[in-house]
Amino acid sequence: MKFTRPTLLLDEARCRANIRRMSEKARRNEALFRPHFKTHQSQTIGRWFRQEGVEVCTVSSIRMAAYFAEDGWKDITVAFPLNYLEVAEVNRLASKIQLNLLAVNKPALIGLLQDLQHPVRIYIEIDCGDRRTGVNPSDGKSIDEILAVIDSSPLLKFHGLLTHAGHSYACRSGIEILRVHQQTTQVMKKAGARLRTRYPELILSVGDTPTCSAATDFSGIQEIRPGNFVFYDIMQRAIGSCTDDNIAVALACPVVAIYQERHEVIVHGGGVHLSKDSLKQEDGSMLFGRVVRLTDKGWTIPATTMTVKSLSQEHGVIRAGDSEIAGLKPGDLLGILPVHSCMTADAMNEYYTLSGEQIAMMPKA
Amino acid sequence: MKFTRPTLLLDEARCRANIRRMSEKARRNEALFRPHFKTHQSQTIGRWFRQEGVEVCTVSSIRMAAYFAEDGWKDITVAFPLNYLEVAEVNRLASKIQLNLLAVNKPALIGLLQDLQHPVRIYIEIDCGDRRTGVNPSDGKSIDEILAVIDSSPLLKFHGLLTHAGHSYACRSGIEILRVHQQTTQVMKKAGARLRTRYPELILSVGDTPTCSAATDFSGIQEIRPGNFVFYDIMQRAIGSCTDDNIAVALACPVVAIYQERHEVIVHGGGVHLSKDSLKQEDGSMLFGRVVRLTDKGWTIPATTMTVKSLSQEHGVIRAGDSEIAGLKPGDLLGILPVHSCMTADAMNEYYTLSGEQIAMMPKA
Repeated sequence: MKFTRPTLLLDEARCRANIRRMSEKARRNEALFRPHFKTHQSQTIGRWFRQEGVEVCTVSSIRMAAYFAEDGWKDITVAFPLNYLEVAEVNRLASKIQLNLLAVNKPALIGLLQDLQHPVRIYIEIDCGDRRTGVNPSDGKSIDEILAVIDSSPLLKFHGLLTHAGHSYACRSGIEILRVHQQTTQVMKKAGARLRTRYPELILSVGDTPTCSAATDFSGIQEIRPGNFVFYDIMQRAIGSCTDDNIAVALACPVVAIYQERHEVIVHGGGVHLSKDSLKQEDGSMLFGRVVRLTDKGWTIPATTMTVKSLSQEHGVIRAGDSEIAGLKPGDLLGILPVHSCMTADAMNEYYTLSGEQIAMMPKA
Repeated sequence: MKFTRPTLLLDEARCRANIRRMSEKARRNEALFRPHFKTHQSQTIGRWFRQEGVEVCTVSSIRMAAYFAEDGWKDITVAFPLNYLEVAEVNRLASKIQLNLLAVNKPALIGLLQDLQHPVRIYIEIDCGDRRTGVNPSDGKSIDEILAVIDSSPLLKFHGLLTHAGHSYACRSGIEILRVHQQTTQVMKKAGARLRTRYPELILSVGDTPTCSAATDFSGIQEIRPGNFVFYDIMQRAIGSCTDDNIAVALACPVVAIYQERHEVIVHGGGVHLSKDSLKQEDGSMLFGRVVRLTDKGWTIPATTMTVKSLSQEHGVIRAGDSEIAGLKPGDLLGILPVHSCMTADAMNEYYTLSGEQIAMMPKA
């Protein structure tokens, strides 16, 4: 491969296989597949989903909803607590597409209603244990207060309950993930059962990559919204969501210096490329990426492990053994599997397929 | 202020004061001020430097050199180990401007010479204790080998010795910084003295924000290249480089949820806005930002401390006391002083001045 500076490589075949696998899993479970597009942030990759029959999606901001609406997506969920300051943009979008927003409290919804002009559907976010956002499922009073605001307006329609089981990221095996999946879906089904008489059409929506990857049974769940699975990364591999062979992105980095006595290789590839996200290792050290060998057909996992031990703005510091160092020289390219592919994609803002085709993302600003 | 989504605010007056202060310090020391533009990455802010009489600059990649050359910068140092894979772009630039590159080893320089067509100046990077890149100053053999390659080509001219005292980032007071400054400048002067008979015009170039901010005496040093000082941030404040009043950027973030029982406030403002860079606190916890109150004229430091305890892609989780929470509601805006302003600016890719003027940065891709 002929790249000369840090370049985010995308293995299209692996990516499409990841999309197909998740799409089929949703179909088998008769759940709607509403993939989260915050990971790839690319209209081109969105079309790969459409080719698998996907017609609806999830995003993490109103701005991202506008970007995908522009490419023909007509039913978009913004899976982030609604920010009523953006009501002008909400109105613009809701006049054209089916926009679905997330309520986590009453005041924001009341704020939205002051200027809302077009119908939107509202999910109530349930906190199943992640302790980030969402209503405590046992807090029926808060749920009913939000529902009362929704029912008070002809522009709002209650769509269902949504959760992000972010606590699955603490798992380190498929068995642990399945335990979180079971716990989460039980909480969701119980919360849904309480409301189903009043709202027979309500849906239950779940969405983290670990549980959607490891679990096979989604009975009683009407919608899944994973995002990261489109690329996966070494964090997902550590969690137990994927194998090395599922990881679909790698950062190609030129080697610029080799320090044999320190067992370190310096590449052009830093925090502005990979992001500073890291993974705590068993020995307490932080890992910022894992090195792979680039080939004409993509990349292969080397027999011995080379890891990214630290990142500054543009430098990546790789720990390598004598035998790996012996085969390297400045000007070689190494691949780095990112810790967190969503953050790396966001930092790079474009992809190159293995055949050298450039794939654009939502512009940064 | 009327911002509706995460917005990077730039206090132009503080920024210009930071530029002026450093510029005057360089002048007093009769050192060339070659500021690092990787922090702001903006042609507009580059012009603010020009208005202070600055005519030369430093960047961290060839691509960034091209971006500033486009705006009339005619003497640019790429303070990153040279990557000879980019020789085509080096040739394009070196045909138009005075381009200065960094050698840290012989093979990369030999690689460059194979295709170099226009003259460039070469610094040799010296590792004064940062242990990232650069030649060990006691390794005269390696230095002489690099010099032999430089002297073998009419296209290469030895410009001097350059260092980045990155180990100053471990300091936590002005006194500690001054110790690093003294140690670094001594190493540089000694390494320079060995070569000055052969290269009477060689310059010594130093460049981290902590030592350039805290030190006043740069005698014997011909060039300073700090970058972060243009904005500063809470990491620099913790190091001892600046006060709160010098920090020139803050991320405006809409409040979307309040969890009184957890003492947490959720804002729209996550890792894709602030970056995931963090600062270890005395109690071992990680800090991802410090909250300020936005006003019509900028921001003020609240009497009690609210801190960003974690970030996901778009969510920021703020720890706040009862009294702070009592005064907040969804739809309010909070400001966040970033841990590392270089990374935050890179993530945001644009600024808004306090008067609402948009300032563009180098496009991401």
